[in-house]
Amino acid sequence: MADSSEEIRREVALIVGGGPGVSASCARLFSQEGMRVAVAARNPDKTVLQKLASDYGIRCYACDAQDPASVAKLFGDVTDDLGPPKLVAHNIDGRMADIFRKKITDADPDRVIDVLRNSAFSAFLVGQQAARSMLAGDSPEDGHRGTIIFTNASAAFKGYPLSGAFAMSSHAKSGLAQSMARELMPQGIHVAHVPIDAAIGWTQEDGTRSHRLAGTTVDDNMADPGHIAETYLHLHRQHRSTWTFEAILRPWVENW
Amino acid sequence: MADSSEEIRREVALIVGGGPGVSASCARLFSQEGMRVAVAARNPDKTVLQKLASDYGIRCYACDAQDPASVAKLFGDVTDDLGPPKLVAHNIDGRMADIFRKKITDADPDRVIDVLRNSAFSAFLVGQQAARSMLAGDSPEDGHRGTIIFTNASAAFKGYPLSGAFAMSSHAKSGLAQSMARELMPQGIHVAHVPIDAAIGWTQEDGTRSHRLAGTTVDDNMADPGHIAETYLHLHRQHRSTWTFEAILRPWVENW
Amino acid sequence: MADSSEEIRREVALIVGGGPGVSASCARLFSQEGMRVAVAARNPDKTVLQKLASDYGIRCYACDAQDPASVAKLFGDVTDDLGPPKLVAHNIDGRMADIFRKKITDADPDRVIDVLRNSAFSAFLVGQQAARSMLAGDSPEDGHRGTIIFTNASAAFKGYPLSGAFAMSSHAKSGLAQSMARELMPQGIHVAHVPIDAAIGWTQEDGTRSHRLAGTTVDDNMADPGHIAETYLHLHRQHRSTWTFEAILRPWVENW
Amino acid sequence: MADSSEEIRREVALIVGGGPGVSASCARLFSQEGMRVAVAARNPDKTVLQKLASDYGIRCYACDAQDPASVAKLFGDVTDDLGPPKLVAHNIDGRMADIFRKKITDADPDRVIDVLRNSAFSAFLVGQQAARSMLAGDSPEDGHRGTIIFTNASAAFKGYPLSGAFAMSSHAKSGLAQSMARELMPQGIHVAHVPIDAAIGWTQEDGTRSHRLAGTTVDDNMADPGHIAETYLHLHRQHRSTWTFEAILRPWVENW
Repeated sequence: MADSSEEIRREVALIVGGGPGVSASCARLFSQEGMRVAVAARNPDKTVLQKLASDYGIRCYACDAQDPASVAKLFGDVTDDLGPPKLVAHNIDGRMADIFRKKITDADPDRVIDVLRNSAFSAFLVGQQAARSMLAGDSPEDGHRGTIIFTNASAAFKGYPLSGAFAMSSHAKSGLAQSMARELMPQGIHVAHVPIDAAIGWTQEDGTRSHRLAGTTVDDNMADPGHIAETYLHLHRQHRSTWTFEAILRPWVENW
Repeated sequence: MADSSEEIRREVALIVGGGPGVSASCARLFSQEGMRVAVAARNPDKTVLQKLASDYGIRCYACDAQDPASVAKLFGDVTDDLGPPKLVAHNIDGRMADIFRKKITDADPDRVIDVLRNSAFSAFLVGQQAARSMLAGDSPEDGHRGTIIFTNASAAFKGYPLSGAFAMSSHAKSGLAQSMARELMPQGIHVAHVPIDAAIGWTQEDGTRSHRLAGTTVDDNMADPGHIAETYLHLHRQHRSTWTFEAILRPWVENW
Repeated sequence: MADSSEEIRREVALIVGGGPGVSASCARLFSQEGMRVAVAARNPDKTVLQKLASDYGIRCYACDAQDPASVAKLFGDVTDDLGPPKLVAHNIDGRMADIFRKKITDADPDRVIDVLRNSAFSAFLVGQQAARSMLAGDSPEDGHRGTIIFTNASAAFKGYPLSGAFAMSSHAKSGLAQSMARELMPQGIHVAHVPIDAAIGWTQEDGTRSHRLAGTTVDDNMADPGHIAETYLHLHRQHRSTWTFEAILRPWVENW
Repeated sequence: MADSSEEIRREVALIVGGGPGVSASCARLFSQEGMRVAVAARNPDKTVLQKLASDYGIRCYACDAQDPASVAKLFGDVTDDLGPPKLVAHNIDGRMADIFRKKITDADPDRVIDVLRNSAFSAFLVGQQAARSMLAGDSPEDGHRGTIIFTNASAAFKGYPLSGAFAMSSHAKSGLAQSMARELMPQGIHVAHVPIDAAIGWTQEDGTRSHRLAGTTVDDNMADPGHIAETYLHLHRQHRSTWTFEAILRPWVENW
């Protein structure tokens, strides 16, 4: 339950995916901008989330994003605790280490379904609940009911070799975003698709930047999630007369 | 078991999906062109397939294309019966009546997974078995080990409103085809993606054309599967110095 | 000549195209954000520009943007007067009334060349001078030498019927932007392509909004150039680890 | 003047561009298929064309394809000599050696205009005359008035660095083809766009294959124009219920 009428007026942001990169950076920036922020993760006890909670008062929720009931419960809980989310970001991209650099002839069918469930189907579940929540109630004066952002990878628009399952899930998420944008924009919901055409590095406690590949030097040849969050904020604040559906983000040195 | 050395030299085509449109037309044309043809369908007893069997000697197989074991068995059986397939077409597009014209907020999550399994995941399974079969053994003199064709819909490149699940599965199939093309073409396998941007009508016994929407008048404003089959044959026969990855087929009057 | 060391540190923006929509809105916003702003137009004496000059101190320059010498002179003059431009926007889209709704069989070849010169070739000339200017001198500490923005239309990615010349010039500008982005981003220049998939309306003196089609009611079903300018500013301020090459802007109600 | 009623019924093909690759191969194949073939080139006296004339009876015409009057005269002469063309291919891609590997800052503006005129504008002129000719007279029984094919390069869909002018002209030609397809297909004209994503090699008198880069070994890692011609013929013969607008051709080993 929101604590006071003042609090109720603060926008609520819900970030699905609890990684130390895009999700943590979005949580920090949105909080600094005055939003009430919720982060949902499979395991909300990890250090990065605990620190977001203690430093910024961000609420962390356990959620299995590929389970319909778990996602429905998440939206209910966040609405009860903070209010209905105005900005929802789905940051799960299905980039699982063991599905890369694997020949199509060697891929494990069970893992292919896992990847589809983890990335594309969870995006559908989150998008569906977000749409239901945003369409409920009266339209605000400016006609902007809310923003749904789907984080994706360059596999969203190019199917690379040796990663068929990832190409499938990334393309599927792109198709979902497009379909939802065409359906929901005329109803006042800004649906945005953000393929990040780069590895993502993040800044650690000690100020150095890190990356999931141990030993990789991280500088601005990798996408900085702090700056990704700035673009998400810009997308959320665009006026509905000039919405951007898709913004591909890539570092200056990326070969494309 | 192939009957004679002569028979062995005839190309084998395997068509997955047993509809009266693209699959039946491909089966007829490929057979007329001298190929040994197999058609796999969930229910191989339907009239259209029985007629292909009696009129053209086409072999029909029962297969649940979203089940890994069933697809593996299909390729084993076809290879035993006719020889290894040189041309494989996956014609299941996941266009299920009950997922269309449905708001994203009303979609049933269980059906979304069904659609992904039925169209995109079955395409993966068929593509994987086809690649394994084609890569086995020596490369032929002309370096062309085989052709894999994925039939798709216009939702492969455009996510329409009110059909999010279909957009997901069609995009996923497109991503799979791209990834497989980039991986397998340099190994001598022509992977082709054919989105059909139209309703498909087919010719009935009595010479009139029919369509799954009862009462629709069918003429050449609908894609004619006999002509679709001609393009599939052309793709299969292209020289590897000039392969087409994607051919979108649409009727002259289509608005796009 | 820049007046003082303080002034020299202010960023310089150069806007090519002197219309009352995107160009005027960019000029106002960039000026309000502390930049020194130059606007180049074929006829710098028109009212909208005179008002920008008197209200905001914006410098207006006469330039025939399809003439190499005139564009070279423009960059020289702006650099002398205000300093080298850090942000350059080319806002000429070649949308000439008399080339629309014209059958390909009726198009006047001379007008086709005019359109190519007016939109695509002028974009090349402006982009070339901008690149030369930005690449001169030392790289700044953050590695961002400047931003070049090409305003375009939806014909950049879709060739509509009855407007072949416009499709050609818009596509050409898109190809130029892509080529320049791949070439110049690794050298620290952010090249951005902004197709606006909408009619553009603008706010008049009296607060009502106007549009080049007399009598059209303008509300937020038309792209508001004030908000377009905000996205241009965001693009200019993106960190180079996460540059957006292309942002298509369209109103919430646009059919696409 | 066509010689007899029999002759009049033979289809007429007009190929604009007189190179030894795609144009010569199309001329040979179309002639072998029974068409009456005309080839237009800036200089019709070159050896390759003289040989087409003597070996196949192909008519060669002098034409400056970027001059409106010259293109109009070409269509008039071909119609008088052979009959109205049913299949027109524009094979000029503007790939001029001196515009490649040139920095955007070093490009000569005069050459940029040359490239636009040579490739994109000539495509417009040829397409316009072809459309006028095909739309004249009654529609044939099958509703297919004719086919217009635009040969293009991979720069049609990707703007590569160091070749801005080529990106502009290739994109422009793509935009033109799209616009004409949407306008003319419903009138019975099949407009097709064929980007060739490869270097093109051709077979010489002695059976070896050649290429414009002296000393390059040519085998099937280069697009073989004989096989390109086969795809053009297939496009021309597609039934109008299933036309392909775009076919990208690339060798099996191409990296894309």
